[in-house]
Amino acid sequence: MIIMNAHATKREIAQVVDIIETNGLRAHLSQGDERTIIGAIGDGRPVQRDQFLHLPGVDRVVPISRPYKLASLELHPKKSFFPLDGLIMGGNEIIIIAGPCAVESRTQLLETAQAVCEAGGHALRGGAFKPRTSPYSFQGLGEEGLEYLAEAREITGMPVITEVIAPEQVPLIAKYADVLQIGARSMQNYALLHAAGASQQPILVKRGMSATIDELLMAAEYILSHGNERVILCERGIRTYETATRNTTDINAIPVLKALTHLPVILDPSHSTGNWEYVTAIARAGIAAGADGLIIEVHLTPEHAYSDGGQSLKPERFALLVEQVRAIAEAMGRTVAPKRTCPSRI
Amino acid sequence: MIIMNAHATKREIAQVVDIIETNGLRAHLSQGDERTIIGAIGDGRPVQRDQFLHLPGVDRVVPISRPYKLASLELHPKKSFFPLDGLIMGGNEIIIIAGPCAVESRTQLLETAQAVCEAGGHALRGGAFKPRTSPYSFQGLGEEGLEYLAEAREITGMPVITEVIAPEQVPLIAKYADVLQIGARSMQNYALLHAAGASQQPILVKRGMSATIDELLMAAEYILSHGNERVILCERGIRTYETATRNTTDINAIPVLKALTHLPVILDPSHSTGNWEYVTAIARAGIAAGADGLIIEVHLTPEHAYSDGGQSLKPERFALLVEQVRAIAEAMGRTVAPKRTCPSRI
Amino acid sequence: MIIMNAHATKREIAQVVDIIETNGLRAHLSQGDERTIIGAIGDGRPVQRDQFLHLPGVDRVVPISRPYKLASLELHPKKSFFPLDGLIMGGNEIIIIAGPCAVESRTQLLETAQAVCEAGGHALRGGAFKPRTSPYSFQGLGEEGLEYLAEAREITGMPVITEVIAPEQVPLIAKYADVLQIGARSMQNYALLHAAGASQQPILVKRGMSATIDELLMAAEYILSHGNERVILCERGIRTYETATRNTTDINAIPVLKALTHLPVILDPSHSTGNWEYVTAIARAGIAAGADGLIIEVHLTPEHAYSDGGQSLKPERFALLVEQVRAIAEAMGRTVAPKRTCPSRI
Amino acid sequence: MIIMNAHATKREIAQVVDIIETNGLRAHLSQGDERTIIGAIGDGRPVQRDQFLHLPGVDRVVPISRPYKLASLELHPKKSFFPLDGLIMGGNEIIIIAGPCAVESRTQLLETAQAVCEAGGHALRGGAFKPRTSPYSFQGLGEEGLEYLAEAREITGMPVITEVIAPEQVPLIAKYADVLQIGARSMQNYALLHAAGASQQPILVKRGMSATIDELLMAAEYILSHGNERVILCERGIRTYETATRNTTDINAIPVLKALTHLPVILDPSHSTGNWEYVTAIARAGIAAGADGLIIEVHLTPEHAYSDGGQSLKPERFALLVEQVRAIAEAMGRTVAPKRTCPSRI
Repeated sequence: MIIMNAHATKREIAQVVDIIETNGLRAHLSQGDERTIIGAIGDGRPVQRDQFLHLPGVDRVVPISRPYKLASLELHPKKSFFPLDGLIMGGNEIIIIAGPCAVESRTQLLETAQAVCEAGGHALRGGAFKPRTSPYSFQGLGEEGLEYLAEAREITGMPVITEVIAPEQVPLIAKYADVLQIGARSMQNYALLHAAGASQQPILVKRGMSATIDELLMAAEYILSHGNERVILCERGIRTYETATRNTTDINAIPVLKALTHLPVILDPSHSTGNWEYVTAIARAGIAAGADGLIIEVHLTPEHAYSDGGQSLKPERFALLVEQVRAIAEAMGRTVAPKRTCPSRI
Repeated sequence: MIIMNAHATKREIAQVVDIIETNGLRAHLSQGDERTIIGAIGDGRPVQRDQFLHLPGVDRVVPISRPYKLASLELHPKKSFFPLDGLIMGGNEIIIIAGPCAVESRTQLLETAQAVCEAGGHALRGGAFKPRTSPYSFQGLGEEGLEYLAEAREITGMPVITEVIAPEQVPLIAKYADVLQIGARSMQNYALLHAAGASQQPILVKRGMSATIDELLMAAEYILSHGNERVILCERGIRTYETATRNTTDINAIPVLKALTHLPVILDPSHSTGNWEYVTAIARAGIAAGADGLIIEVHLTPEHAYSDGGQSLKPERFALLVEQVRAIAEAMGRTVAPKRTCPSRI
Repeated sequence: MIIMNAHATKREIAQVVDIIETNGLRAHLSQGDERTIIGAIGDGRPVQRDQFLHLPGVDRVVPISRPYKLASLELHPKKSFFPLDGLIMGGNEIIIIAGPCAVESRTQLLETAQAVCEAGGHALRGGAFKPRTSPYSFQGLGEEGLEYLAEAREITGMPVITEVIAPEQVPLIAKYADVLQIGARSMQNYALLHAAGASQQPILVKRGMSATIDELLMAAEYILSHGNERVILCERGIRTYETATRNTTDINAIPVLKALTHLPVILDPSHSTGNWEYVTAIARAGIAAGADGLIIEVHLTPEHAYSDGGQSLKPERFALLVEQVRAIAEAMGRTVAPKRTCPSRI
Repeated sequence: MIIMNAHATKREIAQVVDIIETNGLRAHLSQGDERTIIGAIGDGRPVQRDQFLHLPGVDRVVPISRPYKLASLELHPKKSFFPLDGLIMGGNEIIIIAGPCAVESRTQLLETAQAVCEAGGHALRGGAFKPRTSPYSFQGLGEEGLEYLAEAREITGMPVITEVIAPEQVPLIAKYADVLQIGARSMQNYALLHAAGASQQPILVKRGMSATIDELLMAAEYILSHGNERVILCERGIRTYETATRNTTDINAIPVLKALTHLPVILDPSHSTGNWEYVTAIARAGIAAGADGLIIEVHLTPEHAYSDGGQSLKPERFALLVEQVRAIAEAMGRTVAPKRTCPSRI
């Protein structure tokens, strides 16, 4: 939709029409009392809106088509769901993923997995390769961490989710993990999105720190365009001017995503608040807003965590969260997936 | 807390200490390996942090005291509540305020009030003086609107809340309304805050479009400093880069405010989303996060509303919202205040 | 421009057309391959976009007309300028306004005015009524401050600019000041904008902390709609996530405003940076970007200022700023207005 | 710096002190009238601030040390500069890099290079691997594009800068390009930062779309930590609520970076405005604010560009920009590097 300025001449209008037709599209003129508006009508292929901004007489260009197709609920009006180790992601049951920010040691991970299971968590998270703001911070245990994750899955039966930060890691991580996580900082790492898409593994895509909802859907579109349909979207807070919390939970994103896409949507209240005191309240809010699941940071001794201690819950608080989320889910006419049978204390 | 730079000299440190003591405070030095930090210790009076930024050797100044006192939960650890026409604001019961954005006519208001009452709303909102972005938009019915509000209260028994936009209006509006609303655009209109504080009427303070949580509490502090303790805080969405919704609901603000202040906190999901499709989901989320109430825009025929039609609920959808919010409140161990006895159809 | 969703029926389209025509506008359909778009064509009066959001089949509504008329360069293609005590605001010459944040005492103001004059400043700023975040901070000298400003004008010949914070103050302040300032926190205080417009005095409108450029122009439109054409716009920094500076100077706003409006545009680098160390660099940038003037905070002893000391320049640094700005102005083919004849030392 | 709350007990304070000492640091208590503050004093190693947030009695933790060391001007008070194909980056001379957003064809690139050279540009930019929001957009010519860049350098003598988007591309791109660009979307792609650092090639780091200035410096720190000292920082606009321009140029970042780091700082006004109409004004502003260089998108026929056409300058406008920037540089007591001897028309 090209909006001409109030003084655009007939010649200027004709030139815009000409460029539209050169692109294989049809031009449609609306003559207002103040200005002319020209629609570029076609098959939904994105037009280079920038092409028109240099033409004399053009005031603005307003895009009409939404840029994502495969992720669109309008075009694919059936909700997506898929099985995940005995769970259904995207169904009526709420799935709760939990675990430490980083895998710190074998003992730490196995004990945390046990605690998560006992508290009612369904899947295990834990970072082996950590993207850190500082080169001087702990960067993760690497493949050793992946081995501990695999062992924890073996023992507890919980599927495992872990972050991948470079395209060449995808095959390695796919060997160990059930779900590959694309972190917030990687949401527009297109080489990584292509590699993740090609892996055909389930992918959890976290929203970038200042990504729009449309950009999050375009990141999903990269993965979907490889025929990989098992994509989970995750709201994890956005960057705003407010500094009372680490990020601002964009709770609106939950119903907006539910209206725009068929993909499952979960919330990460640990990162979206950055403070353990607020995690449970925001977890409840996420489920009340319609999220399909949660991903929560849990640590046995947060005051000794290598990273994110301030936003990690101790197991007993996490158990409380599961209980409260269950009550909210039931008030919504949903349920939380049932507690797993956990191994006896290791 | 004054942080010196790594190369600060003894003389520069002495000058900072000197200025602190001139202000009637005590200076406290912490000598790190890299730099010196100087605390200004006193009776909680705010120090002019700007005073130090010009002194040689000073790197940064970090404020330690929180600037609000009367609004602080830490200093006043008992939750505030107060009666409002048979309701308790700030108690265990959730209060739902609803009504049109603007009072458009007597019939519109009375019929909407009836519908709000029947759907389970507890108090009536409606703007008589409207702050509008455009001088060409409908600016409200003025005192005529106030009269209709008073009539609606008479008929339905519901307390009435309406916005005040200039200090000299306060006495007039206080004559008609039970609660005076300070709108988002007026949150830092200090002349208005003083006048509202002095009125001794209950005041609903909406968070400014880009106000921090601390600034919202400072606005409350203005009112409290007049001895007016009946202040309600309202999260109504903040301005961020995301354009999929009119504002971004800062859901984190609910538990953060609950941790910082003793004042009741409510949510306005109509403005915080700007789209009726998302209002109910975000209303549920607000209660799940711990809000004490809601304020909701309701219109009989939103497609003909003079303003905010896109974010107004029709009465039947509002009734659904009340029902769903009730379920969430009960899951939280709270209740929604009981439905009022409504007049028979007017 | 109403964008229907991909599955909109003929009946739904007809209903939208119907509502458009009920509003006295013409409907214009563009039938794309994917969806239909309906233009509402009329005389430039704003349509209630919200009206359409409730109609079935409607996906989005995109406004086309710009909401401001009197402020528009497109509709009024001649740059505005006006005389101000021997200066021309909006002409080729750069005008530099300077002075303390707040009038603190007679001596402080007169000495600062003298220093501003000697350094090459052209007009004097100084707050008598101060909007402060905290009720416990210095709130200004009030009318006493206005008297000192008038005295400083008497002595130095410089026109005086001061802030007005409540509608009922306008007549009082108009008696003392040459230009009334609408502060950032008041940019959407519509009662105040109306009063300022009606006064027929020159008005400086500061951009709100999170106001869009369109909203700033709408604030100007309020004043212009009273037939008051002497309006100056001021960029003073916006609120973003970046905390390294108090605000983020939206330097883009300078050329954007120059492209959208005929009104003069100035920059306040004191507030837009919040740190005296950066003020001069950003003042230069503002002029290089095309601003018509600057407003700068100057204090004789910033370390003892009652407010904004950290962003105030000492007179000798301000003199340097004027010199550097002069060099930039000349590189741009403009000049800085000539230095005034200052009184001999008081 | 750990701030205890007003009611913290002696036991709670002792526990914080204990954890500090367990970390090999010294604790320093400041006892205020209202609350106690505990400093953790050590050798500048970052402390896990999160560790303290779970301890009873702790209100907040405020970091004091800046997290970057190698990039810090305070610790390395000599400005960095380095030769670049006959130019000095970071010296008194302004360097102007220009070229198309994407390499589209051999002819396009060679003709643009010629035009850039003739207009007074000093180095050539052009993307061979393009990070694009949509998987359906042009993704660049890949290695073929690199070959054209090398050919353009051969012919014009201009050093070449191009973006690298995945760690495994670094060796390939280092073979063809003089400077590797880390794009805004990759600023926190730590695998890529490590690979770029290890390459020992000059690196241009663009600020992420919502990165703080501290995070930009931490990205540089990753590269510097490999002993690679040839790092250029680039402000390219940040994401804010303002939609009148594609991004908001954070012009404050120029003097702030100059105050915090010894590294050269340049500005990209093409991306920071997103609109060719504003590029020249903001380029002038950048130089006036103290930038050491510019990077500008130039296209022979922007209306046919594959990407970023709307923000690309035609060569004749770019020539005008160089001329105007030269005037500003001279007003600042700097110069623009001299025009190169260009090849005769190809």
